[in-house]
Amino acid sequence: MNSAASDSAANRGAVNETRLRVRYAETDQMGVVYHSNHFIWFEVGRVELLRQLGFSYRDMERVDGRYIAVAEAKCRYRAPVRYDEEVVVRTRLRNVRESVIHFSYELLRGDDGSLIAEGETTHIVTDENMRIAELQEKYLKAFRAALGKTGPAH
Amino acid sequence: MNSAASDSAANRGAVNETRLRVRYAETDQMGVVYHSNHFIWFEVGRVELLRQLGFSYRDMERVDGRYIAVAEAKCRYRAPVRYDEEVVVRTRLRNVRESVIHFSYELLRGDDGSLIAEGETTHIVTDENMRIAELQEKYLKAFRAALGKTGPAH
Amino acid sequence: MNSAASDSAANRGAVNETRLRVRYAETDQMGVVYHSNHFIWFEVGRVELLRQLGFSYRDMERVDGRYIAVAEAKCRYRAPVRYDEEVVVRTRLRNVRESVIHFSYELLRGDDGSLIAEGETTHIVTDENMRIAELQEKYLKAFRAALGKTGPAH
Amino acid sequence: MNSAASDSAANRGAVNETRLRVRYAETDQMGVVYHSNHFIWFEVGRVELLRQLGFSYRDMERVDGRYIAVAEAKCRYRAPVRYDEEVVVRTRLRNVRESVIHFSYELLRGDDGSLIAEGETTHIVTDENMRIAELQEKYLKAFRAALGKTGPAH
Repeated sequence: MNSAASDSAANRGAVNETRLRVRYAETDQMGVVYHSNHFIWFEVGRVELLRQLGFSYRDMERVDGRYIAVAEAKCRYRAPVRYDEEVVVRTRLRNVRESVIHFSYELLRGDDGSLIAEGETTHIVTDENMRIAELQEKYLKAFRAALGKTGPAH
Repeated sequence: MNSAASDSAANRGAVNETRLRVRYAETDQMGVVYHSNHFIWFEVGRVELLRQLGFSYRDMERVDGRYIAVAEAKCRYRAPVRYDEEVVVRTRLRNVRESVIHFSYELLRGDDGSLIAEGETTHIVTDENMRIAELQEKYLKAFRAALGKTGPAH
Repeated sequence: MNSAASDSAANRGAVNETRLRVRYAETDQMGVVYHSNHFIWFEVGRVELLRQLGFSYRDMERVDGRYIAVAEAKCRYRAPVRYDEEVVVRTRLRNVRESVIHFSYELLRGDDGSLIAEGETTHIVTDENMRIAELQEKYLKAFRAALGKTGPAH
Repeated sequence: MNSAASDSAANRGAVNETRLRVRYAETDQMGVVYHSNHFIWFEVGRVELLRQLGFSYRDMERVDGRYIAVAEAKCRYRAPVRYDEEVVVRTRLRNVRESVIHFSYELLRGDDGSLIAEGETTHIVTDENMRIAELQEKYLKAFRAALGKTGPAH
């Protein structure tokens, strides 16, 4: 982590906001979104953050042979979210090393910006055989730039 | 279709019954199972029918390079099904040709056998590049035997 | 059905197009979208068509106590659709009676408009206790107007 | 938490093992189970642990008006799990207070018992209006007995 850095003006590029609408299929009989769906939304945000940085996760897999496997995922549920609500997924790149990437997330209500949930995921970069691999330099460079880092990864 | 044949004693092998329990994640805010899940249950039944015939769908893909892509799927919903209920998936092999397989399904309530839904799926056999391909003889033979057919496929 | 009518200028209001992007969670190990997700997308289209007609399905349930339960669902899969592709869901109101609504769908590739799948769903209108109920007049009126019908429902 | 207690002979009742088989729908294009499904499996285990303690979560909701909302969920992914594998969900009741319940989980490969993932969930007990509520005495009593506690909850 490096909260100080990631909140600075220097790495505004490391944050993405994307919107989605709650689907009926995502609700459960409690009348709210079932809790595993928040992790799917985190992933939607992650992909859009990569796109904002100039990358397509699809090509990362298909062209560059790099996969971002989830090593750890966590979510704290702050308030229920219901069918047809608009949700803002705010995704932040927290840290990156050759083979590890760390993101954090906030899910916010589209109408009033109130907090629905927050979470974090840690990822291991692998090749197509699921062996740990290093991200290619173009990714590392862009990720570090987004994080406002100019020195070598650490 | 060949309902007459498939109901005869000759092809009792072409029917499988497997049980599952409704998960909370499968319900929606109407308090019943969301309707796309029935197709996932059909697939559970399909795989168990193959297993009963001596095959693993996993090996069909990994070892034999044959994929059973869904070309058409249909479900008629007869009664709602709720969280924690036990469901019997009754799967029937209806017809098989070199590159087309047809299954039908009934979903029954575990406690009283009443009908929840019924459906059908049609599948195209493909190779790993999603090109139409023929099933290997061992599958065709077993499927025809299960269907009570002894002549050539048609 | 009444294809002729629904393709006429009179009921252009009965068609909605909405876009979505394929999520990673929607793919399966065949490398394409798993077939039950198409039904979830149909529902996304259905809700947007209602919104276009001036209604919120959320309020239909919460305020008016009417539920649109799925009685039958069908999909024909024409071409595989992959991760991160943009999909256009074209939803068409086909027919409406007091307690039955019929929709049809086309899923089109966002980039070239080619057909991914087409389907239909039939719905029974119920009250909160899942008993068949009539749609309130405001809905029937708007639906018929969209269908280009001026006479009584039939 | 109270790992020492929960591993003692006294609270063997607080552990449940249940088995499930990976469904095709649960895989993604990486060829392994998509990571949000692990949380659905945790829930399957949770419900079976309650059943083992003599309770039905369905009745807890329907009869007793108590809901176990997820407040926090975490999973560490240790190894990929693939289509058609059998998975053992080992669920452990870790702690219980009037309105908070804590579970931990291990997902083990059915054939060799190797670790797939481990996780934890924290739950808030609510009434049907999603307001914090106390568990009825019968639940608290059984949960404490399972935990090997005889004194007052803390």
